[in-house]
Amino acid sequence: MSCSSSSSSNPPCAACKFLRRKCLPGCIFCPYFPPEDPQKFSNVHKIFGASNVSKLLNEIEAHQREDAVNSLAYEAEARMKDPVYGCVGAISVLQRQVIRLQKELDATNADLMRYANANYGTNNYGLYNNNNNTTWNNNPNPQPDDDIH
Amino acid sequence: MSCSSSSSSNPPCAACKFLRRKCLPGCIFCPYFPPEDPQKFSNVHKIFGASNVSKLLNEIEAHQREDAVNSLAYEAEARMKDPVYGCVGAISVLQRQVIRLQKELDATNADLMRYANANYGTNNYGLYNNNNNTTWNNNPNPQPDDDIH
Repeated sequence: MSCSSSSSSNPPCAACKFLRRKCLPGCIFCPYFPPEDPQKFSNVHKIFGASNVSKLLNEIEAHQREDAVNSLAYEAEARMKDPVYGCVGAISVLQRQVIRLQKELDATNADLMRYANANYGTNNYGLYNNNNNTTWNNNPNPQPDDDIH
Repeated sequence: MSCSSSSSSNPPCAACKFLRRKCLPGCIFCPYFPPEDPQKFSNVHKIFGASNVSKLLNEIEAHQREDAVNSLAYEAEARMKDPVYGCVGAISVLQRQVIRLQKELDATNADLMRYANANYGTNNYGLYNNNNNTTWNNNPNPQPDDDIH
């Protein structure tokens, strides 16, 4: 849909259709609310209000408006699904996930350090055994220590 | 501030003060917008509009309204700071953090598995050396293998 050439022969954008007004050339909503997706505007209008969205879009640069509308649509949909927490619920879930993963990573790194220390000790064993003519270096199943970093 | 007993002797809540109206007993905003924090209502009003917030609060149960107001205030503040992405920006950052941590954890677990396999091999070495009267079991620096799980 070419919004700059909006005319009576083009369908109005989803916002103008919802608001029952003529979609004039230069309509601030038109490029971001195509008539094929009426729900997007309906959600954003219910949560933020058309006037607030219009003000916000006018306050930011044109090349950032699509991202702004999409983030507003995301927030609005989240608030429709979860009226109490909205997308802040997703933030809480993600924050807990980050804390859990960081703890797991710390624990795994600690385990890895213990293995690395144990391996260092093993090399010491190797040194202790170097002069004992053991089968150490002739072991049929050498370990791929080089792969460990 | 006791909202149920709001009277002319009490200051109006931040919402009623902002909207220049009398704060009557039963005011839907009063318990969540104390007069000491005018910015909280100002932000929420600018982003969502007082009417939308009032509708939303009336649609949810009383015991959930405080959480709802706090999540709205969080979203509103995030949108004031970042008009393009709002708190969706925080979601993107957290999502990337989760992906990065999960990758790091997978890589660390893979390293741990290699050490575990190497350690299993080391025990094999031990078995190979068992009948060779080496200093294996008399090593002065035994490794704390028991700590590794």
